[in-house]
Amino acid sequence: MSSSSPDRVVAVVGATGAVGEVLLRVLEQRSFPVSELRALASERSAGSSVRFRGEEHRVEVARPEAFDGADFVFFAATGSLSKELAPEVARRGGIAIDKSSTWRLDPNVPLVVPEINGAAVEKQRGIIACPNCTTIPLAMTLEALRRVAGLRSAVVTTLQAVSGAGLPGLEELAAQQSALHEGRPLPAPSAFAAQIAANVVPVCDAFGDNGYTAEEMKLLHETRKILEMPQLPVTMTCTRVPVPVGHSASVLVETERPLEVAAARAAFAAFEGIELVDDPSRDLAPTPADVVGRDEILVGRVRRDLSGDRLWYWECGDNLRKGAATNAVQIAEEVLRRGLG
Amino acid sequence: MSSSSPDRVVAVVGATGAVGEVLLRVLEQRSFPVSELRALASERSAGSSVRFRGEEHRVEVARPEAFDGADFVFFAATGSLSKELAPEVARRGGIAIDKSSTWRLDPNVPLVVPEINGAAVEKQRGIIACPNCTTIPLAMTLEALRRVAGLRSAVVTTLQAVSGAGLPGLEELAAQQSALHEGRPLPAPSAFAAQIAANVVPVCDAFGDNGYTAEEMKLLHETRKILEMPQLPVTMTCTRVPVPVGHSASVLVETERPLEVAAARAAFAAFEGIELVDDPSRDLAPTPADVVGRDEILVGRVRRDLSGDRLWYWECGDNLRKGAATNAVQIAEEVLRRGLG
Repeated sequence: MSSSSPDRVVAVVGATGAVGEVLLRVLEQRSFPVSELRALASERSAGSSVRFRGEEHRVEVARPEAFDGADFVFFAATGSLSKELAPEVARRGGIAIDKSSTWRLDPNVPLVVPEINGAAVEKQRGIIACPNCTTIPLAMTLEALRRVAGLRSAVVTTLQAVSGAGLPGLEELAAQQSALHEGRPLPAPSAFAAQIAANVVPVCDAFGDNGYTAEEMKLLHETRKILEMPQLPVTMTCTRVPVPVGHSASVLVETERPLEVAAARAAFAAFEGIELVDDPSRDLAPTPADVVGRDEILVGRVRRDLSGDRLWYWECGDNLRKGAATNAVQIAEEVLRRGLG
Repeated sequence: MSSSSPDRVVAVVGATGAVGEVLLRVLEQRSFPVSELRALASERSAGSSVRFRGEEHRVEVARPEAFDGADFVFFAATGSLSKELAPEVARRGGIAIDKSSTWRLDPNVPLVVPEINGAAVEKQRGIIACPNCTTIPLAMTLEALRRVAGLRSAVVTTLQAVSGAGLPGLEELAAQQSALHEGRPLPAPSAFAAQIAANVVPVCDAFGDNGYTAEEMKLLHETRKILEMPQLPVTMTCTRVPVPVGHSASVLVETERPLEVAAARAAFAAFEGIELVDDPSRDLAPTPADVVGRDEILVGRVRRDLSGDRLWYWECGDNLRKGAATNAVQIAEEVLRRGLG
């Protein structure tokens, strides 16, 4: 944003959650122009405090009046809170940037990954949606290849970190791992469909009638909307792995035009926000641990399908940063850059 | 085997390893007719002892003379030991059942999953190979569908347990997890290409020149050999997850003839050695923790590709039991049943 921008009043709804906490850090690290910070949360979490730029901020209850005079309100809370409150932000002339799934598929709400479709913020009417944490790295990597060779289809298996389910997910993994470590009986699953410590759970979020989970359907529909390819054949299985932070995905992609491995690697390396980490001669490929605390999506294991003309790749991203908080802040920066907020 | 079978002299090479230990338990549990057990290992591991049917057996060095009079010799050790010693078993009139990758693709050596191609043991000339721990569940589940609808192609992503790399893999995960738990620096990776605790490593075994790992090429070539489909387009990414025991795979399969989800579920349920665990209405799908200590391959998440006519499924198997020890013992039982050993 330009240095002449006057500072903005910024509110964070869900400031005490896993994404909310990272959002405060990202606002600090990126020197977002904040003149006033309002830390908000549901009634359950209000009353505690969070730190921002060295000062404690008491967490207040997220009520419509808290949005009076706010320029940007980041929602990092439950979908029901976003559904109720994001229109209140818009009504007051602010911009709600929502991390929940509530508004993502609304035709009147832009769904934005700035490196792909930053211009979509021009169409905002007070609410801008941030995609799901698995969608962002998938859409970015697919877009990188589409720009050089077009895109025909993709087959995706995700391996998602427990923090995708917020603090309850992190706490459930930690509690079960402690129990295993100390030989105690495991606490029963609550955040996940089954034990997650020392295990893999091939169920993320609730099942729909078609046998797919909500997480899988999000990945399908959000990817199509961001890429503006409403018929793109992309099919997926989403799984949860005992990793605190860092989502991964194994992707097999078919491009419209032939694409050599070297050209695909170059396309990934050239794409803003992607870093290529791909050197089989040194056993080097991206892992979730490599992305923790970073904003880049790491891509590796680029190779040709041995039975056809498709390309495999493997991508990892920090689900709390680029998969959530960083992307949300980048959306706000995009709004400022375009003089819209 | 028939109750009239005289008992056999059985040797286990690698009796102190992760698979060797389970092999002894499986021989006990299945009441394999053992008149004499010889526990063998490399010079490094010899001298310790193992328990079998309540008795301690001193582990002797695996030398050719140890195979004199042996009917079955199970190899659960390194490939180099199998390469050197399996022919010594054959030369002495015994049958080597080898769990290493050494002989699997040898055209003179049957590669056997009894539920699929038990009759292949008829062609044995003293060595029978047991497939890789990822190949066995994949081949079984593909065969289940092929029998009802033919098989055109498959796309596979595996999530493999650390015990696939034997005791060193188990010890590395445990040591890193203890360090994380206690806030100590993590011991450097040795069994795996990167940190495995709280992480996913998308590299199993060494890379080849084509960008695929040895694990991936095994899965390709072994599946084709077992199914006798040398051109089957099957393509895969193999990953390692921080799970002690239990390999999983996410599979997208194209059958020759249309196959409804209900018919696919029925085909899995009807296949010997597979159990269907697939109830989205109860959030029920197989996990690695569910298969630990069991011999069945669990299958779930059966559903149609939303963009085409392919079917997704998810399978889990105990890599030390059906993926290794149990399959090896079943091969010996098949030999006995057919009066060949």
